[in-house]
Amino acid sequence: MLGIDPGLTRCGVGVVDVAPDRSARLVYVGVVRSAADARIESRLATIAAGIREVLAAHRPDVLAVERVFAQQNRNTVMGTAQASGIALLLAAEHGIPAALHTPTEVKAAITGYGGADKRQVQAMVARILQMDELPKPADAADALALALCHAWRGSAGTPTTSTGPLTPAQRAWADAERVARR
Amino acid sequence: MLGIDPGLTRCGVGVVDVAPDRSARLVYVGVVRSAADARIESRLATIAAGIREVLAAHRPDVLAVERVFAQQNRNTVMGTAQASGIALLLAAEHGIPAALHTPTEVKAAITGYGGADKRQVQAMVARILQMDELPKPADAADALALALCHAWRGSAGTPTTSTGPLTPAQRAWADAERVARR
Repeated sequence: MLGIDPGLTRCGVGVVDVAPDRSARLVYVGVVRSAADARIESRLATIAAGIREVLAAHRPDVLAVERVFAQQNRNTVMGTAQASGIALLLAAEHGIPAALHTPTEVKAAITGYGGADKRQVQAMVARILQMDELPKPADAADALALALCHAWRGSAGTPTTSTGPLTPAQRAWADAERVARR
Repeated sequence: MLGIDPGLTRCGVGVVDVAPDRSARLVYVGVVRSAADARIESRLATIAAGIREVLAAHRPDVLAVERVFAQQNRNTVMGTAQASGIALLLAAEHGIPAALHTPTEVKAAITGYGGADKRQVQAMVARILQMDELPKPADAADALALALCHAWRGSAGTPTTSTGPLTPAQRAWADAERVARR
């Protein structure tokens, strides 16, 4: 499960392996950075190259991306939306489904509280993945939280459209969730 | 010169050839469409494939994209921003510079009036390119207008960053503009 917290300056990338019993293991966490003074097209290419490396190295089944809203911070929201578009395109080009989750969904899935702050998310991600230190920066923790959120919510997450059928991976997760609930 | 009016449902794509004396010739115009009920990642892949085809067929020197603002129509602005991110990424991956122009800049460059309506832009684009019919839909006309705007403004257009040096193509345009002004 690959989680991406999209951004131009810092794009969080986290890979977790989640078992049907919902236990999770950290596979990879990192942040792809691009220079604020570089041209926008080269910044997006840097982000794309970083995500492609992780896709090639870890071959995730699903890519989960944070859903961006227009009403968020106006200075950076367009770059964030562009970076999320890149992540979604790369999912399609690698033949894996993409899922979108709102920050509130992610916080609720990880901490039990949709209004949790960054520190609480970092602490819970560290505990769940048995990390010795808090995942930093917050973008890295958010990427891991997204991956965990999607694994746990499975097909109950916000679908990318209202009409798409379940993908094989989503179906597998839905089945696993049903088994876990018995 | 490739102009792109980014969008998920309709992405306008126009290619024009502009001589140093500022006369322009229509090379290609089209609209890449994606189905509103498809998954977002597959819609972005469709847009990317359509733009890649035009890049391969016409090998433009520069890609001009409409600058998207967060305060525009909220229902579609995120998809528009994602599509613009795809266009910018493809520019970088094809080794050509990208330029961003605001709708006001484009209208002013084409019609002489930044508040021109869609019909006025279509009419002027048709006249400049000696087209027998108005370019339709408006997204197609806007893409051609963007390409013309960038050609005419040259490096005076909104740079993608405030610090980037001129690319060879931008320098060539700046030189051509200087010659034309003599």
